[in-house]
Amino acid sequence: MLKNYPAIYTDFYELTMAQGYYLSGRKNETAVFDYFFRKIPFKGGYVVFAGLSDFLEIIKGYRFHQEELHYLHTQGFKDSFLDYLKNFSFTGNIHSVKEGEIVFASTPLLRIEGNIIETQIIETILLNIINFESLIATKASRIRQAAGERLVLDFGLRRSQGFGGIQASKAAVIGGLDGSSNVYAGMEFGLNVSGTMAHSWIQSFPNELAAFRTYAEHFPNNTILLVDTYDTLEQGIPNAITVAQELKEKGYSLKAIRLDSGDLAYLSKKARKKLDAAGFPHVKIAASNQLDEYLIKSLLDQKAPIDIFGVGTKLVTAYDNPALDGVYKLASVNDKPTLKISENVEKITLPGIKNVTRYFNEDGTFYADGISLQNEQKPVSHIEHPFLPTKKTKVIDLKSEPLLSKVVENGEVINDICSATKSRSYFRQQIEKLSPEYKRFDNPHVYKVGISTELKSLRDTMIQKNSK
Amino acid sequence: MLKNYPAIYTDFYELTMAQGYYLSGRKNETAVFDYFFRKIPFKGGYVVFAGLSDFLEIIKGYRFHQEELHYLHTQGFKDSFLDYLKNFSFTGNIHSVKEGEIVFASTPLLRIEGNIIETQIIETILLNIINFESLIATKASRIRQAAGERLVLDFGLRRSQGFGGIQASKAAVIGGLDGSSNVYAGMEFGLNVSGTMAHSWIQSFPNELAAFRTYAEHFPNNTILLVDTYDTLEQGIPNAITVAQELKEKGYSLKAIRLDSGDLAYLSKKARKKLDAAGFPHVKIAASNQLDEYLIKSLLDQKAPIDIFGVGTKLVTAYDNPALDGVYKLASVNDKPTLKISENVEKITLPGIKNVTRYFNEDGTFYADGISLQNEQKPVSHIEHPFLPTKKTKVIDLKSEPLLSKVVENGEVINDICSATKSRSYFRQQIEKLSPEYKRFDNPHVYKVGISTELKSLRDTMIQKNSK
Repeated sequence: MLKNYPAIYTDFYELTMAQGYYLSGRKNETAVFDYFFRKIPFKGGYVVFAGLSDFLEIIKGYRFHQEELHYLHTQGFKDSFLDYLKNFSFTGNIHSVKEGEIVFASTPLLRIEGNIIETQIIETILLNIINFESLIATKASRIRQAAGERLVLDFGLRRSQGFGGIQASKAAVIGGLDGSSNVYAGMEFGLNVSGTMAHSWIQSFPNELAAFRTYAEHFPNNTILLVDTYDTLEQGIPNAITVAQELKEKGYSLKAIRLDSGDLAYLSKKARKKLDAAGFPHVKIAASNQLDEYLIKSLLDQKAPIDIFGVGTKLVTAYDNPALDGVYKLASVNDKPTLKISENVEKITLPGIKNVTRYFNEDGTFYADGISLQNEQKPVSHIEHPFLPTKKTKVIDLKSEPLLSKVVENGEVINDICSATKSRSYFRQQIEKLSPEYKRFDNPHVYKVGISTELKSLRDTMIQKNSK
Repeated sequence: MLKNYPAIYTDFYELTMAQGYYLSGRKNETAVFDYFFRKIPFKGGYVVFAGLSDFLEIIKGYRFHQEELHYLHTQGFKDSFLDYLKNFSFTGNIHSVKEGEIVFASTPLLRIEGNIIETQIIETILLNIINFESLIATKASRIRQAAGERLVLDFGLRRSQGFGGIQASKAAVIGGLDGSSNVYAGMEFGLNVSGTMAHSWIQSFPNELAAFRTYAEHFPNNTILLVDTYDTLEQGIPNAITVAQELKEKGYSLKAIRLDSGDLAYLSKKARKKLDAAGFPHVKIAASNQLDEYLIKSLLDQKAPIDIFGVGTKLVTAYDNPALDGVYKLASVNDKPTLKISENVEKITLPGIKNVTRYFNEDGTFYADGISLQNEQKPVSHIEHPFLPTKKTKVIDLKSEPLLSKVVENGEVINDICSATKSRSYFRQQIEKLSPEYKRFDNPHVYKVGISTELKSLRDTMIQKNSK
C-alpha cells in the first residue's frame, strides 16, 4: 500500500540536491553509488541481507504524484524542476547481493548506476528499507540459531516501531523465522500467520475453565491455551488437561499450552511432566515473554522442554542494537572516481566502479570477500586489508563467485521479485556455508574483506592528491 | 495513506478471539480496557504521551475491506463472522489523556469502552501507535531539554525502523523538536521540513568551492554548507567563508555551516572564530553525527558554539531503549470488574472502571496522580501505594483535575484531531509544570501514583477470592 508513495518518503535534502543538479544543467551526468554498512550489529559475525524485494517494488512504483508535487511547490521548489519530476522514474541499473545472502562490513552490497538525479534521489528510501530489514533478518537469524529447528514465531507487532512492523515481520521470516502474528504482513507478503488468545479472553469468562472450553469448542483443530492468567501450576495446566481430555473424547487433540510469565525453564518442565502424566505427550509447550537469542539459548541449555517460541519486542526492534549503520556513498561521477575523506580513517570511501568477489574454501564454505575495480585488466591475485599493509591474502587459486548481479536494467526489474519464503530458503542454504566460528555470539571470528592492489593504489593516489 | 487500512495491521489472535466472542453469542456483551505502561524508558522521570491523533484517525477509518475479508477467509475464518466484520466499525467510547501530556507509569492513559469485540480488536494497533509515538516524543523531550531553545531537527529517516519513520518524525515534533528532514511526514502532518546537501553533492563537483558556489547560486536564501567532506579547518571553512563573501556581495547571507564528523566541540569553536574573524558572526553553526541528549549536553557544557542540532538514529529508534512497554488490560466485563494475577506482583492489574485525578502543588506544579473507581460514593481523601501499605498520601485538600476526558463517543471522534504542532504547544505548557527533579537524566525523583482505598480493597478482595 505505502509502497505506491515512496517518492516523498525521503530526506528533504535529496530534493534540494536534485533541484540543484537540474538547475545547474547536470541532469544527464552519470553517477554510481555504493551501499554498504560499517559495523556488524549485536557484536555478531555476519549480517543477513534483506529488504531488496521491497526496495525493488519501490523502484518499480517510484513516481511523484500530483498531490506531492503540489506540496513541494508550497515548499519553494521551482516549477521547472517540478515539471521534470512529473515524468520522473528510475531509469538506471542496479546490481545487488541476493536477498537472504550472508554479508559483512565494508562490502558494497548494492551498486546504483544512472543519472546523477535518479541515483541521488533514491538514497533515503534505499537506506531506510535495506538498513532495517537487514537488521531484523540478522536478529532473526541469531534467534533461529539459538532455537535450532523448533518453531519460532514473531509476536512483536504491539511493540514494533509504528508501521515499521510491516517490514519487521517480513524480515524476521527472511532471517529464518517460521511465521508471525502480523496479519497485514501475512497478507502482503504471504507469511504464515497464527495466534489464539490473550489473557483478556480468559478474564472475560466467569472462570478459566469456561474460557478454555469455549475456545476449544470453536477452534477444535487449533487450540493453544494460555495457562498463566491466574495460577499456572495450580489452575492453568490442570484446566488445560481437562480440556485436552474433552477434546480427545470428541476426536480432536489439544495443540499446545502457552507460558507467558514466570520462570519458563521451571514451569515448562513442570508442565511437561503434568501433560505427560495425564497422557498428553503430544501436546506442545509454547513460551513467550521478552525472549531473545540469549534467553532461548539459556532455556535450552537448561533443557526446558519448549517446542514453540514466540518472540516479540527484542526481535522486532532489534532491542540491543536498534539500527544498522548502512550508508550510501558516491563512488563515481561521469566515469571519474570520487572520494570522501574523513578524520576517521575507516570512514574514507572506496572510489570507482567496483566489483565484489566471494572466495570459497575447498569445502565450499566462505573464505573472504574481495573488492576490486571493474576495469582491472589482470585477474586479482591478492586482496589486502584496506589500511594495514601487512595483511594480505592470496586468492588467485581459490574458487570464487561474483557477489553482485544485475537486478534492474534501464529502470526495469529484470527477474521476478523474491517472496519472503523464497529469500528464507536462500538464507538457510547460505548460512550453512558460514563456518561456526563466525556465528558465535561471543567474540565471533572476523571475516576477511579485502581490496585489490589496483583499488588500493587508486584510493591512496586520490587521498595524496587531495592533501597536497 | 496506511491509516485507511488499519484493521488487519493486527495480531492474528485479536481476530480469533473476536470470532470466538461472536460464535459464542457474546458480541453484545460490554467490556472496558485500560492502556498504561509499567516502566518509564531511558531511566527517566516522565513520559510524553503521544500517538492519540494518529490513533483517532485510525478509529475513524477502521473498516475491513473486501480484499482483507477474502484473505481472512483463506485463513480459515468463518463466513458468519466475516459477514459481521463486513459492517464492522468502532462504536464505543474512548477516554484519553491529551496528546503532549506528561504522564507516569501505572496510570491508565486511555480507557476503551464498548462491546467485547470492538474493544478487543483494536488492541494491537492502539499499542503499536501509542507505545511508539510516546517513546519517541519522550526521547525528543529529553533532547529538547538538553538543547535549550536552540533549533533541533530530526534527520533520522535513513535509520528509522522502516515505515516507522512516518510516526517517528511526527512524535519527535510533539515532544518538542522544531522540524524534520522527512518530507512525507511534513506533508502528512504539517511539520516544518528542511535540508540542503549531503557529501555526495560536494564530491560530484571538481572541487569543494565549485560545489558550494553552485549551491549558493540556486539557493541563495537558504544555503547551509557541509564543510567536512575533505578537510574541515583547512578547506571546508575557508571555502564557506569565500562563498559567504560572494553571497554578501549579491545582497544575500550564508545561513549556516554544518559539521558532521570529528570533534564537534573543538571544530565548532574553531569554526566560530574563523567565521567571526571574517566578519560573519551571524552565520550559524549546525552539527550532526550520532547526537543524543547526553552528547548535546556535553557539547553545551563545553561551551561549543552550536546553534542548530541535527539528531538522527539515536532519536528515531530511541536507541538506548527502543520500546515502551505499554499494555492493554481488561478491567471490566458486563460492568463486573476483572483481574489478571501474576507471579510478578507488579503485573497484577487494577480491576474495574477507573478515573484518574491529577493533584497539584500550590505553585501549580504536578504533585501526584490518583486512580480511583468511577462509582466511588465519597471523595477520595488519600491515595495509597499499590503494594506498600505504609505509603499513603492525603490529597483531599489539593487542587485537582481529571486526567482523562472523552475523545470518542459512540464511535464518533468528538473534537478536532490535534495537529502535531498543537500537541507540541500543549507539551511545552505541561512540561513547565513538572518540577526539575523529575526531569534529571540521572536518578530522577519518582513521581507519586497512588490508588484509592476503595480500589485497593476491591483488588485485594478479588485476589483473595481467586487464591482460595
